[in-house]
Amino acid sequence: MRRIKLIVAYDGTEYSGWQIQPEAPTIEMCLDKAIRELTGENVHVTGASRTDAGVHAYGNVAVFDTESTIPGDRFTFALNRFLPDSIVIQDSWEVSGDFHPRHCNTRKTYEYRILNTVVPLPQKRNFTWHVTGSIDIEKMKEAAAYIVGEHDFKSFCCVRTQAESTVRTIYSLEVLQEGSEIIIRIKGNGFLYNMVRIITGTLIQVGKGRFKPEYVKQMLEAKDRTVAGQTAPPQGLTLVGIEYVDNDDARVV
Amino acid sequence: MRRIKLIVAYDGTEYSGWQIQPEAPTIEMCLDKAIRELTGENVHVTGASRTDAGVHAYGNVAVFDTESTIPGDRFTFALNRFLPDSIVIQDSWEVSGDFHPRHCNTRKTYEYRILNTVVPLPQKRNFTWHVTGSIDIEKMKEAAAYIVGEHDFKSFCCVRTQAESTVRTIYSLEVLQEGSEIIIRIKGNGFLYNMVRIITGTLIQVGKGRFKPEYVKQMLEAKDRTVAGQTAPPQGLTLVGIEYVDNDDARVV
Repeated sequence: MRRIKLIVAYDGTEYSGWQIQPEAPTIEMCLDKAIRELTGENVHVTGASRTDAGVHAYGNVAVFDTESTIPGDRFTFALNRFLPDSIVIQDSWEVSGDFHPRHCNTRKTYEYRILNTVVPLPQKRNFTWHVTGSIDIEKMKEAAAYIVGEHDFKSFCCVRTQAESTVRTIYSLEVLQEGSEIIIRIKGNGFLYNMVRIITGTLIQVGKGRFKPEYVKQMLEAKDRTVAGQTAPPQGLTLVGIEYVDNDDARVV
Repeated sequence: MRRIKLIVAYDGTEYSGWQIQPEAPTIEMCLDKAIRELTGENVHVTGASRTDAGVHAYGNVAVFDTESTIPGDRFTFALNRFLPDSIVIQDSWEVSGDFHPRHCNTRKTYEYRILNTVVPLPQKRNFTWHVTGSIDIEKMKEAAAYIVGEHDFKSFCCVRTQAESTVRTIYSLEVLQEGSEIIIRIKGNGFLYNMVRIITGTLIQVGKGRFKPEYVKQMLEAKDRTVAGQTAPPQGLTLVGIEYVDNDDARVV
């Protein structure tokens, strides 16, 4: 039995997220189906980042075990033939049998895009959150500085979270402008349920003058979801990469 | 009776192009329907650029005549309420009754995007042409220089064209690189059927070494479609703007 690691990109628009659900198309379901069609095996992939409905990814990670003799790097093109064009395997290789994509020391990076125009642009509707009116980016940057570091993010996660600890470390949080788009890029050792979307919603409310930047410090201290800002919608969010810090995903030669 | 000018953006992915067709969704049909729902009038819009199936636009132009008393600039938001989110009115105003969006001296700009990566990226699939392998952009730029100017573009239009003259003027043709995307930006006084897509297909074949850049000169002289390169697929193409040179679309105050 060999363990294969897949690097996966997808346009999440038409999916009910990563995880298998009854009667709803998911990324996991499509990957399982493609592997079954390729190898004839009934396998279940294990994903690193189980993204929500409408959220996109580049560089998400999944593993599965196979008896197939297909070389690890050949799964990329072989599986792409069986996948819909909204899901693409970007890379694949064999890893050691004890590699688990979630039980590892990782750094994940997410990007959130806001389109700040008077009317929305149809070409951007599935990949941005359309916000009208003036937004003070400098104030957003000030607020972002309070988020960086190790904090209890209880105020910035969905109350339905099942996480045992709500402490996470944010290594960087950039607010960038690219034409009429504002990009929030955040890197951390893990993210709670809805955390990036609540941070984004809060930063936008800071940019619109609803909260003072320094109020974010009090939000963190309150450890109460009702104190932080709104949850930004899913379609602006993309997982853009996962680093395995301890290199426990090394290729099996 | 007043004539209203609309500036229209759309994601052409799910449309059979601009022009009304029996039993296929088109941009024109959606605009007519939205105007009927807003004003109760049975009107037909006249478009400046009747783009093909799968082609996108920002800044396309349409006009219609109405008895409605809605101020010209209010049609933007009023019509957007009745349009699907893949079509957006970007601006609107009243113009003089003799303004026709096609019988005017215009400069149109199109942009074509090529994604040059090993595997395609699902988020870009409806807005780029995925081309693998190495592409020599400098050679593409050399070839592009032969296209600029007034030429007979008979070799660069679909043989099904109904145009009386195949002479057009290209004011500029840029080949740019933006990360893993190659962007072809072309501005001219008019474009024949499939002309931008055939120019793009030819330039890519030059970039891949299939044609020498100077061979484009002979392609123009041949006035024969079979001599030029392939037709690039529609989804990489976006109309990005139309200038009315004689200002005959001035706002009625």
